[in-house]
Amino acid sequence: VSRSSHRGRGTRLACRLLALGLPLASAASGAPPGTGDPAPWLDEYRPPAARILEAARGDSTAWERIAHLTDTFGHRLSGSPALEAALRWAAAEMQKDGLRNVRLEKVMVPRWVRGRESLRLVEPFPGEMAMLGLGNSVGTPPEGVQAEVVVVRSFEELEARGDGLRGRIVLYNVPFTTYGDTVRYRGAGAARAARHGAVAALVRSVGPPGLRTPHTGALRYEEGVPPIPAAAIPTEDADRLQRLSDRGARVVVHLQMEARLQGEAESANLVAELPGREKPHEIVLLGGHLDSWDVGTGAVDDAGGSVVTWEAVRTIHALGLRPRRTLRVVLWTNEENGLRGALAYRDQHAGELKDHVLALESDSGVFKPLGFGFTGSAAARDTVRAIAGLLAPLGAQEVGPSGAGADTGPLVQAAQVPALSLTVDGSRYFLLHHTPADTVDKLVPAEVSACVGAVAVMAYVIADMPDRLPR
Amino acid sequence: VSRSSHRGRGTRLACRLLALGLPLASAASGAPPGTGDPAPWLDEYRPPAARILEAARGDSTAWERIAHLTDTFGHRLSGSPALEAALRWAAAEMQKDGLRNVRLEKVMVPRWVRGRESLRLVEPFPGEMAMLGLGNSVGTPPEGVQAEVVVVRSFEELEARGDGLRGRIVLYNVPFTTYGDTVRYRGAGAARAARHGAVAALVRSVGPPGLRTPHTGALRYEEGVPPIPAAAIPTEDADRLQRLSDRGARVVVHLQMEARLQGEAESANLVAELPGREKPHEIVLLGGHLDSWDVGTGAVDDAGGSVVTWEAVRTIHALGLRPRRTLRVVLWTNEENGLRGALAYRDQHAGELKDHVLALESDSGVFKPLGFGFTGSAAARDTVRAIAGLLAPLGAQEVGPSGAGADTGPLVQAAQVPALSLTVDGSRYFLLHHTPADTVDKLVPAEVSACVGAVAVMAYVIADMPDRLPR
Repeated sequence: VSRSSHRGRGTRLACRLLALGLPLASAASGAPPGTGDPAPWLDEYRPPAARILEAARGDSTAWERIAHLTDTFGHRLSGSPALEAALRWAAAEMQKDGLRNVRLEKVMVPRWVRGRESLRLVEPFPGEMAMLGLGNSVGTPPEGVQAEVVVVRSFEELEARGDGLRGRIVLYNVPFTTYGDTVRYRGAGAARAARHGAVAALVRSVGPPGLRTPHTGALRYEEGVPPIPAAAIPTEDADRLQRLSDRGARVVVHLQMEARLQGEAESANLVAELPGREKPHEIVLLGGHLDSWDVGTGAVDDAGGSVVTWEAVRTIHALGLRPRRTLRVVLWTNEENGLRGALAYRDQHAGELKDHVLALESDSGVFKPLGFGFTGSAAARDTVRAIAGLLAPLGAQEVGPSGAGADTGPLVQAAQVPALSLTVDGSRYFLLHHTPADTVDKLVPAEVSACVGAVAVMAYVIADMPDRLPR
Repeated sequence: VSRSSHRGRGTRLACRLLALGLPLASAASGAPPGTGDPAPWLDEYRPPAARILEAARGDSTAWERIAHLTDTFGHRLSGSPALEAALRWAAAEMQKDGLRNVRLEKVMVPRWVRGRESLRLVEPFPGEMAMLGLGNSVGTPPEGVQAEVVVVRSFEELEARGDGLRGRIVLYNVPFTTYGDTVRYRGAGAARAARHGAVAALVRSVGPPGLRTPHTGALRYEEGVPPIPAAAIPTEDADRLQRLSDRGARVVVHLQMEARLQGEAESANLVAELPGREKPHEIVLLGGHLDSWDVGTGAVDDAGGSVVTWEAVRTIHALGLRPRRTLRVVLWTNEENGLRGALAYRDQHAGELKDHVLALESDSGVFKPLGFGFTGSAAARDTVRAIAGLLAPLGAQEVGPSGAGADTGPLVQAAQVPALSLTVDGSRYFLLHHTPADTVDKLVPAEVSACVGAVAVMAYVIADMPDRLPR
């Protein structure tokens, strides 16, 4: 909900201002709202901000690096050799870029393996269906699980079926509205069906209708409830089973999944810095996650965010700019199925979290930038709004209500670190999210470069401005 | 080319007429162009045409039957039990509709079986890729075929590589322009690569970029050239291999396919009639093909055309209309990988082809109808144009240059049977063509009903008008 309603508000605000004859620039000039005062300290940042935006606009390195990374290594599921090779490649590139203190900080991650998997319609007539197992799911017995399908459209309908679910396979056929409203069927659907004795769960993919496109993602089991195998099916297959069921047909499917957890594997968060010239112990952190699901090549989620935050720091460095505080890029591991990277960073850096001035995450795609979400104090928000005014040339001056992301959330919770998340045009995001179609061609080089510019300006000013961003 | 340029011409023509202040209706009223004369014989068909269009508009049976057929039986590849079950189901439904002389006319068809298949990137880094074997392809040896990939963008580039192709896997990375221009790489690419000693062929899917969507379809081997396995890959995978190759990486893939021809199987064309009240031996044939590729559920290609032509006859019958000539529905088998149905129909009905007044095929999707393509004499074209004027309420009065389809072509060639093909808005067709995404949800009930109306009016008038459509 937040993403779309937030963007809607921004647009409406702009329309109202234009209707009133007010120049839009006044809303985006850097004046803290409600005061009418300008932010004179900001004036010295207009020239470097303009240089940064110009450099980013003329540079397609970010898109090319996302392409190189995802073309070469493919997907980067936690525990895979590809993720570790990608981490080593990125570390070596960062060294070549002249970044400092480049290091891999060890993190143990779960190694979940998909294996072979299939879904077969048995009745009313045999045939293969499209499917994609959910992350963290257990497998079926080797011979598979075969049972009649019960289609429900909500948890309420599930509960109403009660004992009628015993020995059945539940299909949650819930059309996508917002991610928040529908992802709970992917996350909790298997456990809730298992409470009633269901033997497996199918979930309509959490995303808009695509081209027979299944969306994976993590599920969570419950203590004391048997874990049952669960898979996503495309909207087309969900609606087919719904129609068959509505016509009164007995619908039987056969699910076979080799999915299993194979212990843990060693992985790492990749950290690199541009040390601050005056206050190197004060840290402006920015990053994305380098791991991905094991479908597609994880270009949108989240090679894009990883490379854009890294490229933001490289661009600042390449322009000879060196802010007062340290810019630290963190490419987290295991965001998708464990969050071990974020938790390890929080723990391994517990002693310096008080000096984390800001944590900026990019994990909503690197499409046309619209601005940032922010979590922090009102005073800090005013400062962020002022800086965001420098992004008016990109149309990226929005500052929305929520800035804590999956990987920065633990820092906010543990130490009230102010958090920014890059906000972009999200219209394509959930069509691609956790699907085989998450590949670099879905990203537009000019949009990626604009994201680099937006992130670089925001991070540079916060790292360099005379006063530390207030908590 | 013909489909899009033809539609473009129609739109431009309409715009020109409007710009000149001429009423559009004059172009669509039924007056043979160039004469300025009305077609007075047509007037008696305005009331039944209006009744047919109204009945079709208010009836969603066609969409529901496409859904029932494709939901229940899934894909209907030649030689599959699903195709034969679908044929029996449709025959029984036609009996219930009150159609006459419902019969299955035996046809032997090839049984091509896909089996398991996979494509794996070996170098520069191991990982799975998306693929879909081409129809009629041979398989690989059980251990697969592994070789370096040579990417070419045209047959010219292929020939220029010459001996450099020996022992290699060729990728044809040719962006989709029109079907006619790019399908030749799917059809002939394997054979032409094999001439130079290539061990397998990959073809960029013949269609616009989708969501990692591969497109299958038939290939043809050449006499005297060894058959090599061939598969389509999505545009994303083709561009990935292109970029890797352009960067100078050695690209090695491993292809494994169990595809094989397993002899022949018994199938059938399904025939049903509404016998003519005065000239039952004169036949207006209309139909589509009931077989499909073994991906998706073949709703667009061509359950839609099969059901629309069948429903056109059912609608005429249900209104109590009984034309002078016989309306004959033919649902052909094996259009996709052999054309055995069309050839068998031609041969089994050789004696009555002279009395085939018309053959109308629907095999370009049943989206918003725009009119028909026509192949036949100039005099017949004038008549068809006049009748198409009755479809102005649907906006389906276009009559384009070419009406012979895959299944009606043999009748045109053998006996100069005039041929019509339903023309529709083709903007979605090649996104879905021969893909797993060819499912009934891509069809819009109101558009399908409009197709029924257009086909029914055209077929009814040609079957009933006093003079036989001239050859």
